[in-house]
Amino acid sequence: MKQLKLGMIGGGHGSFIGAVHRRAAMLDGHFQLTCGAFSSDPTISAESGASLGLPAKRVYASYADMFSSEAALPPDQRMQAVAIVTPNHLHAAPAIEAMRHGFHVIVDKPLAISLDEARQIQQVIHSTGCQLALTHTYAGYPMIKEARQLVHAGKLGPIRKVLVEYPQGWLSQALEDSGNRQASWRTDPGRAGAGAIGDIGTHAAHLAEYVSGQLITELCADLNSVVNGRQVDDDAAALLRFSDGASGTLIATQVATGEENNVCIRVYGELGGLQWSHRDAESLRVNLHEQPAQLYRRGDAYLSQAAANNSRLPPGHPEGFIEAFANIYGSFARRLHTSGASLTPADLFESGFDYPSIDEGLRGMAFIEAMQRSAKSTQKWTTIKP
Amino acid sequence: MKQLKLGMIGGGHGSFIGAVHRRAAMLDGHFQLTCGAFSSDPTISAESGASLGLPAKRVYASYADMFSSEAALPPDQRMQAVAIVTPNHLHAAPAIEAMRHGFHVIVDKPLAISLDEARQIQQVIHSTGCQLALTHTYAGYPMIKEARQLVHAGKLGPIRKVLVEYPQGWLSQALEDSGNRQASWRTDPGRAGAGAIGDIGTHAAHLAEYVSGQLITELCADLNSVVNGRQVDDDAAALLRFSDGASGTLIATQVATGEENNVCIRVYGELGGLQWSHRDAESLRVNLHEQPAQLYRRGDAYLSQAAANNSRLPPGHPEGFIEAFANIYGSFARRLHTSGASLTPADLFESGFDYPSIDEGLRGMAFIEAMQRSAKSTQKWTTIKP
Amino acid sequence: MKQLKLGMIGGGHGSFIGAVHRRAAMLDGHFQLTCGAFSSDPTISAESGASLGLPAKRVYASYADMFSSEAALPPDQRMQAVAIVTPNHLHAAPAIEAMRHGFHVIVDKPLAISLDEARQIQQVIHSTGCQLALTHTYAGYPMIKEARQLVHAGKLGPIRKVLVEYPQGWLSQALEDSGNRQASWRTDPGRAGAGAIGDIGTHAAHLAEYVSGQLITELCADLNSVVNGRQVDDDAAALLRFSDGASGTLIATQVATGEENNVCIRVYGELGGLQWSHRDAESLRVNLHEQPAQLYRRGDAYLSQAAANNSRLPPGHPEGFIEAFANIYGSFARRLHTSGASLTPADLFESGFDYPSIDEGLRGMAFIEAMQRSAKSTQKWTTIKP
Amino acid sequence: MKQLKLGMIGGGHGSFIGAVHRRAAMLDGHFQLTCGAFSSDPTISAESGASLGLPAKRVYASYADMFSSEAALPPDQRMQAVAIVTPNHLHAAPAIEAMRHGFHVIVDKPLAISLDEARQIQQVIHSTGCQLALTHTYAGYPMIKEARQLVHAGKLGPIRKVLVEYPQGWLSQALEDSGNRQASWRTDPGRAGAGAIGDIGTHAAHLAEYVSGQLITELCADLNSVVNGRQVDDDAAALLRFSDGASGTLIATQVATGEENNVCIRVYGELGGLQWSHRDAESLRVNLHEQPAQLYRRGDAYLSQAAANNSRLPPGHPEGFIEAFANIYGSFARRLHTSGASLTPADLFESGFDYPSIDEGLRGMAFIEAMQRSAKSTQKWTTIKP
Repeated sequence: MKQLKLGMIGGGHGSFIGAVHRRAAMLDGHFQLTCGAFSSDPTISAESGASLGLPAKRVYASYADMFSSEAALPPDQRMQAVAIVTPNHLHAAPAIEAMRHGFHVIVDKPLAISLDEARQIQQVIHSTGCQLALTHTYAGYPMIKEARQLVHAGKLGPIRKVLVEYPQGWLSQALEDSGNRQASWRTDPGRAGAGAIGDIGTHAAHLAEYVSGQLITELCADLNSVVNGRQVDDDAAALLRFSDGASGTLIATQVATGEENNVCIRVYGELGGLQWSHRDAESLRVNLHEQPAQLYRRGDAYLSQAAANNSRLPPGHPEGFIEAFANIYGSFARRLHTSGASLTPADLFESGFDYPSIDEGLRGMAFIEAMQRSAKSTQKWTTIKP
Repeated sequence: MKQLKLGMIGGGHGSFIGAVHRRAAMLDGHFQLTCGAFSSDPTISAESGASLGLPAKRVYASYADMFSSEAALPPDQRMQAVAIVTPNHLHAAPAIEAMRHGFHVIVDKPLAISLDEARQIQQVIHSTGCQLALTHTYAGYPMIKEARQLVHAGKLGPIRKVLVEYPQGWLSQALEDSGNRQASWRTDPGRAGAGAIGDIGTHAAHLAEYVSGQLITELCADLNSVVNGRQVDDDAAALLRFSDGASGTLIATQVATGEENNVCIRVYGELGGLQWSHRDAESLRVNLHEQPAQLYRRGDAYLSQAAANNSRLPPGHPEGFIEAFANIYGSFARRLHTSGASLTPADLFESGFDYPSIDEGLRGMAFIEAMQRSAKSTQKWTTIKP
Repeated sequence: MKQLKLGMIGGGHGSFIGAVHRRAAMLDGHFQLTCGAFSSDPTISAESGASLGLPAKRVYASYADMFSSEAALPPDQRMQAVAIVTPNHLHAAPAIEAMRHGFHVIVDKPLAISLDEARQIQQVIHSTGCQLALTHTYAGYPMIKEARQLVHAGKLGPIRKVLVEYPQGWLSQALEDSGNRQASWRTDPGRAGAGAIGDIGTHAAHLAEYVSGQLITELCADLNSVVNGRQVDDDAAALLRFSDGASGTLIATQVATGEENNVCIRVYGELGGLQWSHRDAESLRVNLHEQPAQLYRRGDAYLSQAAANNSRLPPGHPEGFIEAFANIYGSFARRLHTSGASLTPADLFESGFDYPSIDEGLRGMAFIEAMQRSAKSTQKWTTIKP
Repeated sequence: MKQLKLGMIGGGHGSFIGAVHRRAAMLDGHFQLTCGAFSSDPTISAESGASLGLPAKRVYASYADMFSSEAALPPDQRMQAVAIVTPNHLHAAPAIEAMRHGFHVIVDKPLAISLDEARQIQQVIHSTGCQLALTHTYAGYPMIKEARQLVHAGKLGPIRKVLVEYPQGWLSQALEDSGNRQASWRTDPGRAGAGAIGDIGTHAAHLAEYVSGQLITELCADLNSVVNGRQVDDDAAALLRFSDGASGTLIATQVATGEENNVCIRVYGELGGLQWSHRDAESLRVNLHEQPAQLYRRGDAYLSQAAANNSRLPPGHPEGFIEAFANIYGSFARRLHTSGASLTPADLFESGFDYPSIDEGLRGMAFIEAMQRSAKSTQKWTTIKP
C-alpha cells in the first residue's frame, strides 16, 4: 500500500501521546509524517517539527494555518489525514475543521469534551464523507481481537457477566500541584472535561462492549475525588447492565497506589470464561467449563484471522503498546485506501481490520455523562443515551 | 497445650466441610475428635463415626442426645467444644443448645439463617459465658494476617479503596438438578437462606473489613439468579462505603465459569497498596508509591509476629487451605485454655491468635440482609445494620 | 481402614521434618502416633513425647529400647511401623534393626549415608519381608502424578529432554557457624554424607526419573563448595543422559540467594512438553505442539485416577507440602493393609497409590556417589551404578 | 539528532528479521531506509524495494552494486550505514566490503560462520575505522541494562552462579522438510554454520556475560541433533565456568516442544539474586537475602539512567522486542554521531548507550567453536579462546 501523508495537531516537545501516535503511524509504513501544528506556541511547534526532520514550511503555527495551506497544495503533496493529540477540549473544533477541508481524522480518546460536541462531529462526518478513527488502544491488541472472535463465535455460550477494570496509581497524590504537565491538564475540568472516567473509564467501557458484543444500557456509579483539592473525579466504580442481559462491574481509578496501567477484562458465558490483562497482553486465558484453562498466545497458528492480521512477530517475541496502537492506524489506512469500496462490518470483523470510530466516540461521551448523572442521583440505575 | 475434646454435628459421609474441620482441628494437635452426631440419619451417623475410629457409644443419633449424654460424663472425659458443620439453617439451634449445656462452639459460616437468629446466639453467649468461633477461613491465612498488620501500622497510609472479589464457576450450570449434594442445599432457600452472598459474599465482606480495618457502612447491590430456575442468588456485586471514608467494590459470583475459588483482595492507601489472591495464598504483594513492588512470602523472617505465629513450614514449602483453617482452630484452642484470663483485643491482634467470632457472625448476617434489601430497592445506597 | 500404630525415631523439639512426618501420618487418619524415641538425649525425648500427649511408658530413651519394648507388647497394642527422621547417618542402623524386629519403616531421604548402607537395608527387606517407604515428597504431589501419567500414556510422544532443578538460597551464607541446627548437621560430612546433592539433588534426580519414566544412566557433574569453609558441596549441576535416549540437566544449589524451595521440572517429548514448579504446585502446564498451553489444576474432573486419589479438596482450595507428604504415608498405609495380597506395579501406577521405596533409595545413593565421582574426574561422562 | 541513511542487504519478501531491523531502525527516527539489495534475486530485490517505497534507482541487484553506486553519490545523499540481515554465511563478505567502502555496519548475529571470518572482520574494522553493531537483541532490553547495573554496583555481592537458558520448540519436528524458509537455512550447515548454539546459544552466552560482568572461560557441552536427519545441532546444554569464579549452566534447545522464545537468566551473588525472563521482559525480579523479593518495572522512577535511556513509555504500557532492537540501533546512531569524539566504555555503561560490537561477535564465534569442540571431546572441560 502507498504511504499516506499524515499531519499532526499537538504532540510537541513533552507530549506523551503525540510520540506514540507518530511511532504507531510509521511502524508499518502506512503513514508518513508530512506536516504538523505541534503546539499553540509557534516557537515550540517550529522546534518540534524541526527535531522531527520536517521542512520548516510544513510546520505550522496553528491548525487553521495548516488546513488552509495544506489544502492549497497539489493533491499528491498535501496531507491526507490528520492526527489530533491535544487535550480533550481541543478535539472537536480541529476535527470538524479538518473534515471540512477534506482531511480524514485520527483523534485521541475521549472523542470530545461533551456528548453535544461528539454529535457535531458526527454530523460533519455525514456531511463531508470523511473518515474518523478514535484511538481506543486496547481494541488494537491482537488477543483482544481474539477474545472478541471467541465470544462472537459462541465459544463461551451466552455472555452473562463482564468484569472490567482500569486501575492506576499515578494520581494517588496531588501530582498536578508539582507542575507535572500530564497531570495538570488531565485534572483540569476545562481541558479534560472529566477525570478518571474520561481518561481511563472510557477505555474500560469500550473494551467491555467491544469484547462482549453487548452494549451497556444502564449503570449505577460511584464517583470520587479522592485527592484533596482535585477538581475532577479520580476514582470511579459502577454496576453495569448490558443489552443482552449480562451484568457487570467497571472500576476506573487513578488512586490505586502502585498500580500501573493494568487494564483487565473478564467475560463469562454459560460455557466458559476468558480473561485478558494488559500486564500480560500477549496472552488470553480461556476457561471452558470443566476443561483445563487454555492460554492462547499471540502469534500462534491456531488463532483467528483477526488476531493474525494484527500481529507481526513470532510468539514469544513480545509486541506491546505501540504495536496495538499501530494496528488502529493500519486498519484506518486500509479503510482510507478502499474509500468508496464496500467494506461491510462483517468483513472488518472477520479480518480484524476494524477500528473505533464515531459510534464508539459517541458511546464514550454518553458513558461519561451517564456516569456523572448517576453519581449525582439517589436512584440506583441510570440509562445511557444514546 | 493439652488436647481439647471435640464433638461434631454434621460432617458425615459425603460432607465436604466436615472433613476439613476434622483435619484442621487435629493438624496441630489442639483438638481430639471425641464424639459426634454426624447425620440426622442415625445409620449414617453411626457408620461415619465408626469409620473415624470413634467408639460406638460416643456416636449419637442426634445432637440433643449428644449434648445430654456428654454433659453427663465426668468432666475429664466429656466433650469440651463442638463443631457445627451442618447446612446454614441448622446452625443456630444446636449452637444455642450446645452453649446451654456448657459446650463451646465452632460453627461454619454464615453464622445462621437470619440476623435475628444471630442475635439469639449472641444473647446465649452473653448468658452462658461460652466462646464461639466462626470459620471465616481466609482470616486464617498468614499473609492475610500480615496484610492486616501492614494496614494497621499505617504502611499504606489512610485507606481509600478496597476491592474484594470471590469468583467461582461451579454453579454456572444447574448442578442442583443433577443430584449434587453440595449444590442442592446451597441453592435451597430453606436450607441456605441466601445463595452466593451467604456462601461466598460473607467471606468477601469479612475479608474486606478484616484487612482494611474499616467497616462497611453502606452498600448498593445488584443480585442475580443467573441460572434458569435457581431459587437463590448466584451472582452478586456491590458498591461499598466504609466507616473511615474508603470506598470499594465487592463481587461474589458462582457463575464465573471456569473460575475456582480465587478470592482476591486489594487495598489502596495514600502511600501504597497491597494485593492478595487465594491462587497464590503464600504471597502478599505490597506496592509502595514509586518503589519496586515487594513480594512478601509466608515463612520469611521479616514478617510480623502475627504471620509467624500462623505458619508451620519454611518458605517455599506450601501451606494451604487446611492450615488456614487450622489456624482458626488453634487460636480458638488458645482462647479456651486461657478462659478467665484477660486476653485483650490488642494482644490477639499482635499475636495473630485472633479468630472470627460472634461480632463477625452478626456482621455477616447484616451484610446478607442489606444486600437483599438493596437488591430490591430503587434507591442507590442501603445502610448495613448493625 | 483401621489406623496403624506409628513410632518415631528423632523428631524431638526443634526438629523440622519430624513435625512434618507426624502431621502427614495423621492428616488422613491412616496412622496414630503411638510411641517414640525422639532424641538421643533421654530428657529431650521424654519432654517431646509428653508434649505430644504420649504416655510416658511409650516414650523411650533409645530406639533399641523402643524396638525391644514394643516387640514385647501384645500385637494389638504394639507399634506397627516406625518413622525414622534423624540425620542421614542415623538412617540405616535403626531401619535395619526395626525390620529385624518386624516393624515396617518410613525413612526420610536420602536413604542412607552410602550406597553400601543402602544395599544392606535392601538385604534386610528381602530377608524380613518388611516394607519400606522413602519420603521423596515431590512424588506425593497430585500434579506430579498427573505428569507421570501423561508421559506414560504417550501424550507428549517419546521423551527427549528433561530439565530439573532445585534452587535454594538458605545456605548462601555460613549459617552453620551461627548455631542453626538444621544448617549444622546438613553441612556436616559425618552426619549428612553429602551436601546439596544429598539433601536436594536426590529429590531432583528422583523427580526426573519418576516423571520421565526413564533412568539416568550417565552424568557429568560440577560440584562446588561455594561458601568459605564449608565441608560439603552446596552447589551442583550436571548434564544427564537417560535410559531411553533423553538428555537433560540437573541443578541443585543451596546458594541461589533469595530462592525458596522452587523445585521445577520440565519434560519435553516429540509431541509436547510439560512443566511443574513447586511455587505453583497445584498446576501442571501442558504444551502440545501448536496448541494453546493448558493448565491442569489439582482437583479438576478431567484428571487421572492417580491424581484424583491423591487429592482432598476442590480445585482452588490449595493443598500443599503436608498433603503431598501425607499422600506417601497414605499409599504406604494402603500397602501395609494389603500385605500378602498381590499389588502389581501397574495397579499402583494406575491408582496413584505408589510410593518411593528401596529401589528409589538405592538409586538416590548411586546418584550421590556418581555425582561425587564425576566431580573429581576429568572425563566427561560417569556411569551411574546400579 | 539528524537521521542517518541506512541501506540493507537481505530482508526481502518473506524475511523475518529484515522487517524487524527496519522497524527498529526507524522507530525512534534515528535511521531512514535509503537503499537496499534485498535479495540475491534481482526481481525480488526490486519488488521488495518498491513495496518499501524506495525509488528504483536505490534498489540494487547485489550488494556489490550497492556499495559502488552509493559510494559514488554525494556525501549528503549516500548511505551511511548498512544492515546485513542475510543468513550467517553471508555476513562476513558484505561486512568487510561495506567497511572498505566506508560504510558502517549493523549485522545480525552470529557475526559470521567461523571464528576465522570474525577475525577478518575485526582486522577490517581496525584498518578502516568503521563501526560495527551486532544485534544481540536481549542486550537492548532496559531491564537487562538494569540487571547489569545492579550486578556492577555490587548490589548482589560477588557473583557465584549464572543460570541462562533459551528454550524453543519450533524445530521440535522436521520443519525444514516442509519448505519452511526460516527452518531451511537455519538447519543448513552451509548457510547457518551451527544450529541451536549459533542461533540461540550465542544469545544466551552473550546475556550471561553481559549481565554477570564475567566471561565464560571454560565449558563442558552436550550437543544433540534430536530430530531425525537434521544436519546441525538442535539441542545444547553446557556447564560453565566464569572468569571471576562463578559457575553456571547454559541451555539452548530448539526441541523444547511448546516453548516460545523464553530466554531466561538468573544470577546469584553472595547478597542476592536476580531473575529476568523474556516472557515478562518488562520486569526484573531482585531477591536480596532475607528481604521480600522486589519487582523492578520498566519505566519506573527508581531505575538507573541506563534503563531509563532505553525506555519510551510509562510503566504498564508494554514495550517489546522491536523496542529492544531499536535500542541497539539508537545507541549505534549515537555512536556514529559522535564519531571521533571520546566515548569511554564507562560513559557507555553509565548511559546505557552501549551496544554489542566486534568483541561480542568474536566471543560468540569462540563460544560456538568451543561448544563444538567440547561436544566431541571425552574431556570434561574445554577452554574458550579467545
